[in-house]
Amino acid sequence: MPAEPGDSRSPGRAIYTMSNQVTPSVPAKHRIVILGGGFAGVHTAMELERQMSAALRRQIEVVLISNENYMVFQPLLPEMIGGTIKLQHGVTPIRRLLRSTRVYIREIQAIDLTAKTVSLAQGFQPKPEILAFDQLVVCLGSRLDFSKVQGMQEHALPFKYLGDAMRLRYVALRALEEADIQIDPAERQKLLTFVVAGGGFSGVECIAELHDFLQHAMKAYHNLRPDELRCILLQSADRILPEVDPTLAQYAHRILERRGIEIRVNVRLNAVSADAVVVTPKGSSDSELLPTRMAVTTVPSAPDPLVLNLSCPLDRGRIVVDEFLNVPGCESLWAVGDCAAVPQRDGITSPPTAQHAVRQAAVCAKNLLVQFNGKPKTSFQFTGLGKLASLGRHSAVAEVMGIKLRGIPAWLAWKAIYLGKIPGWDRKFRVALDWFCDLFLPRDIAQLRIYEPESVRRLHFHKGEIIFREGDFGDNLFVIIKGEVDITRGDSQIGSLKAGEVFGEMALVSDDSRSATATSRTDVAAIAISRAAFQQLVAHLPGVRPAIDTILTSRGYQRGVDGSGDGN
Amino acid sequence: MPAEPGDSRSPGRAIYTMSNQVTPSVPAKHRIVILGGGFAGVHTAMELERQMSAALRRQIEVVLISNENYMVFQPLLPEMIGGTIKLQHGVTPIRRLLRSTRVYIREIQAIDLTAKTVSLAQGFQPKPEILAFDQLVVCLGSRLDFSKVQGMQEHALPFKYLGDAMRLRYVALRALEEADIQIDPAERQKLLTFVVAGGGFSGVECIAELHDFLQHAMKAYHNLRPDELRCILLQSADRILPEVDPTLAQYAHRILERRGIEIRVNVRLNAVSADAVVVTPKGSSDSELLPTRMAVTTVPSAPDPLVLNLSCPLDRGRIVVDEFLNVPGCESLWAVGDCAAVPQRDGITSPPTAQHAVRQAAVCAKNLLVQFNGKPKTSFQFTGLGKLASLGRHSAVAEVMGIKLRGIPAWLAWKAIYLGKIPGWDRKFRVALDWFCDLFLPRDIAQLRIYEPESVRRLHFHKGEIIFREGDFGDNLFVIIKGEVDITRGDSQIGSLKAGEVFGEMALVSDDSRSATATSRTDVAAIAISRAAFQQLVAHLPGVRPAIDTILTSRGYQRGVDGSGDGN
Repeated sequence: MPAEPGDSRSPGRAIYTMSNQVTPSVPAKHRIVILGGGFAGVHTAMELERQMSAALRRQIEVVLISNENYMVFQPLLPEMIGGTIKLQHGVTPIRRLLRSTRVYIREIQAIDLTAKTVSLAQGFQPKPEILAFDQLVVCLGSRLDFSKVQGMQEHALPFKYLGDAMRLRYVALRALEEADIQIDPAERQKLLTFVVAGGGFSGVECIAELHDFLQHAMKAYHNLRPDELRCILLQSADRILPEVDPTLAQYAHRILERRGIEIRVNVRLNAVSADAVVVTPKGSSDSELLPTRMAVTTVPSAPDPLVLNLSCPLDRGRIVVDEFLNVPGCESLWAVGDCAAVPQRDGITSPPTAQHAVRQAAVCAKNLLVQFNGKPKTSFQFTGLGKLASLGRHSAVAEVMGIKLRGIPAWLAWKAIYLGKIPGWDRKFRVALDWFCDLFLPRDIAQLRIYEPESVRRLHFHKGEIIFREGDFGDNLFVIIKGEVDITRGDSQIGSLKAGEVFGEMALVSDDSRSATATSRTDVAAIAISRAAFQQLVAHLPGVRPAIDTILTSRGYQRGVDGSGDGN
Repeated sequence: MPAEPGDSRSPGRAIYTMSNQVTPSVPAKHRIVILGGGFAGVHTAMELERQMSAALRRQIEVVLISNENYMVFQPLLPEMIGGTIKLQHGVTPIRRLLRSTRVYIREIQAIDLTAKTVSLAQGFQPKPEILAFDQLVVCLGSRLDFSKVQGMQEHALPFKYLGDAMRLRYVALRALEEADIQIDPAERQKLLTFVVAGGGFSGVECIAELHDFLQHAMKAYHNLRPDELRCILLQSADRILPEVDPTLAQYAHRILERRGIEIRVNVRLNAVSADAVVVTPKGSSDSELLPTRMAVTTVPSAPDPLVLNLSCPLDRGRIVVDEFLNVPGCESLWAVGDCAAVPQRDGITSPPTAQHAVRQAAVCAKNLLVQFNGKPKTSFQFTGLGKLASLGRHSAVAEVMGIKLRGIPAWLAWKAIYLGKIPGWDRKFRVALDWFCDLFLPRDIAQLRIYEPESVRRLHFHKGEIIFREGDFGDNLFVIIKGEVDITRGDSQIGSLKAGEVFGEMALVSDDSRSATATSRTDVAAIAISRAAFQQLVAHLPGVRPAIDTILTSRGYQRGVDGSGDGN
C-alpha cells in the first residue's frame, strides 16, 4: 500500500503539544489506540486492518504504541541465549506485519481515561507528546515482579524480553572467560554456578537451554572441566511445570536431573546480591547461601504500573473485561492478552498465553468495529489447544488436544507447531535454517558487548558480605542507604558506618588501591557511583567537592579531592 | 587438545596480587605475552602454536590479552550495519582459533617495560592483576582520534569495532522510527540526514552500506518518501579513496553520487553536537551547519594510549621496529600490525591493512622462537597484494596484483577473496548463507536496544543551539564546564549563566515541564546528569541537596528539592 503523505501527516491527526498546555482536540477520524506491541497488540491491529473495508479505513485511524519496533516470538527466546536462533530471527519487525496502522515506538507515560488521552515519553527531542483516542485497547502484558525479594531489582537478571536473553548470554560468557583464568577455587566455583529462579515454563526452558549452551561453550575453554559447571533451578511449589500434567512434569524433572541440572523444589528465594543468592527451604528458617555470579529470575509476574493506575476494576492485577473484551461500564476501553482477565466459556479466566491472546485479539477487533459496520457482537469462545515446553537437546513435553507427548515426538511437535506460528515467511525460513545449521555447526561463543553497568546504581549486600578488600582496585564510591558496614584494616576494626555515610572515597581520590576492607554487618542497601562519574561530579556538581573534602579530613586524609592542597 | 588443569592453573604461572604489593616472580616457563586480539595478535598466537614443537610447548607459555573474546573480520563490518551479515557471523571467537594459548579477556591498564609486567583491569572482582612476561608482542592496532574536533567525543558515532556497527544500526533505525511520526518538517529532515566523516576505505564502505540499508528499510515506513533521505560523505582531501588509483576513485565517486549520496570533498569537520555538524570548505572561513541526528566518524586514526606511553621511539604514533619486527635496542619487545612502523623491502612503511598484519605475524612468530630452535632470523618481505573497496549493491573497485577492476567483476572478486579469508569454515558457511539469503529476503529492521546513554555524560552545544525549550520534558540537569548559556522565558531574557553554574534543575525537582528556554550564547561544553541519577544523588550524596536548595532559593523557587519545605 502506497504512503499517503499529505493525509497521514496532517497535524489534525496526531496531537503534539509544543508547550506544557495540553490541547487534545478531537481528531479528524475516529481513532483506535492500541497500547503494546506484543502478540495481543499486534494481532489486534492486524485483525482490524483485515476486517476494515476501504470505506471504514477512511473513517477510522488505528494507532499502535510499542516500546520496541519488533514483536518477540516468546517461545524462541530461550534458544536465543545459546545462539541457536540468531538474535534478529526470533523477532518480527512490527512494521512488516502492519500496513496502514500508525506505529509509535515510544514508552507510554500515562493514560487519562477522562480526557481520553495517552502521554508518550520523549523521542530525540525532550517534548511531551499527547495522543487523543476514541477507543483504547490495552495490551500491556505483564511484568516481572522484583519487589518481593531483597536485591532482586539490583542484581537478578530478568528473563522475559529479547534484551534479557542478550544480557544473559553476555554475562554467562563473561563468567566462563573469567573462570578460565581464575585460580582461586571459591571464586572459580562461584563463576561456574548459574541459578534460575522459577520452575514454570519460562524457568524450565531457560535453565535447559542455558545448561546446554554452557556445556557446549565450555569445550572452547581449555582450563574448564565439564564437571565444574553447576546449574540450579529454584522452584517454590512442590514440583516444576505446574502448568502441565504431573506425569509430564515428573518426566521433565528426571530428564533435567539426568543431564546434571540441580532442581530444588519447595524453596523460597530470599535475597540476591552480586555474589550469591540466599534460599530457605519451605517450612524452615535456616537459610542457605548459594555463591553465584549469575542469578536469573522468571517469577512471578506483576501488572504493568500503567494498568495498576487505571481507574477500572482489576482481578489479581488484570483488567476485568466481559466476554466481548470490553471493560464493563466503560464503552471506550478494551483489554486483550496477559493484562486482561477474560472469562472463558468453561468458567475459568483465560491463561496468559499467546494462543489465547491471538484469539482474544480477533474477537476484540470485531467488536471494536461493531458500531461502524452494524454486525452483531462476538463473544470469546476459545478454551486452549494445548501446552508445550521445550527441554532442549531434542526433548520436550507436550499436551496437545488432550494427547500427552514427551521426548522426541514432543520435540518434533514443538518445532513444527512453533515454526508454523512464527509470523512472516522470511522469519520461518531463517529460523528453520538456524535449526538446520545447529545440527552440524559449533555453538557461537562471541560475547557481544551490549551491557554496561550504570554509573550511578543501587546495590544490595547480604549480611557478612565483603564489599571490597584491602588492596582491591578502587572502582566505586558507596553511600549507605540502609544497614551498617564495618571497615577493617589488617585485623583491627577502624570504623563502623551507617545510613547516610559514605565509604570507598579514598581510593577514588588518590588512585591508590583500597586501604581497608569493607564488610556488611547487616543486610545493606547502598548506591555505588563509578570512578568516572564521581570524578565528573566532584569537579563540576556544586556541593560535592566540599562535602567529600570534609569527609576526607575527618578520616585523616591529608590532601583534597584533587590530590593537592591540605584537605580543608 | 585436552585441558591440563593441574598444570595450566598452577599459581606460579599467572601472578595475582591479593594486596597492593606487586610481586612479579619469574614464571616457571618462558612467557610470551601478546597484547591485542585483532588480526595481528591472533595471527601471531596462531603462528606460534603452529611453529612450536611439543618440546618447545613445554618450555614456552603463550598468553594473549584482548578486550573482546572475538576477532572482528573488518571487511564485513559495513554489511553488519544493514544486517546483510548477521552480527555474530562477521566475528570469530578467539578461542576457536587458538588451542594452547592462554586467553585473557581483560582491558590492559599499563605496560611496565622495566619490571617486565602488564597490569590488567579488574574482572568481576575489583582486584588488580599483574602479569609478568619474558617477551612482549604489542598488537594494539590504532584508535579513532576524537580529540581534534569539538564535540566529536561526545556526539559522533565511531565506526571501527563491532559494537560501533551495532550502535549505528540502532541509531539509524531509531531515526527512521522518529521521522515516521514527526510532523515538524525541520526536525523530520534532521532525522533523515546521515553524515559520515572520512572518505577513505572505511568511510566509503560505511556510507554505501548505510545508504543502501536505509533505502531498503524506509519501504517499511509508510510515512517516509525515499527522496527525503539525505546521506552525506565528508572528505578533507580533494578526492575520495586516496588509497587507490584516481580512475577507480572517480568511478566510485560517480557510482555513489548516481545513487543519491552527496559527496563533499575539500571540507573540514569543525564541530559535532547532538543536533548538527559544522563544516568549513577548505581555504574558506565560512562554516556551514548541517542539521543531523547521526554523525559517524571514520577518521583519523591515533595511537592507543598504551603505545604512546611506551618508552620506545615512535614514528607518527607507530612503534618503530626493524625488519624482524623487533624494537631496536629492546630485545624482548616486538610490535606487529597497525601499531607498528614496519620497513618494507620497497622502502616504504607497511600500510595498516590485515594482509600486511598477517604476514608480519608469521615473521614475528618465527623470530620469537629463534632463541629456542636456533633457526636463523627471518625478515619481512611482503609488499602487498592489492586493494579492495566495496560500494554495496553489486559494485566495488579493486586493484589486485596490478589489475584494476570495477563494477560487478570487482564485486565478485571482493566476495570471493574475503570469503576465502574469513577464519573458520563454519563462519565461511554462515557468511555465504547470509549473502545468499540477502538475494531474496527483505532487510531486517528490528531495532535491538543495545545502547543506553550514560547517566552522567559530557555534551557539546554549538553557539546558538537551543539546549531545551520552555514546555519541554525535563530529562537532564546541566552543569556548564565552558561557555555561556542564555535563559529566556517568552521573549525576555531572565538570566545568563557561565562556567560552573547549574541549570535545568527546576524541572527535575518539580516534575513540571521546562519553565524557560536555554540557548548557548557561545560554544558550550557541559555535563548532563539524568533525572534518575540526579534523584539518587540529591537523596544520598552528601553536599548535593543543600547546594541545589541554595540554587533553587536564589532563583526564587519556593520548595526544597524534595518538593516540600520552604527552600532553605
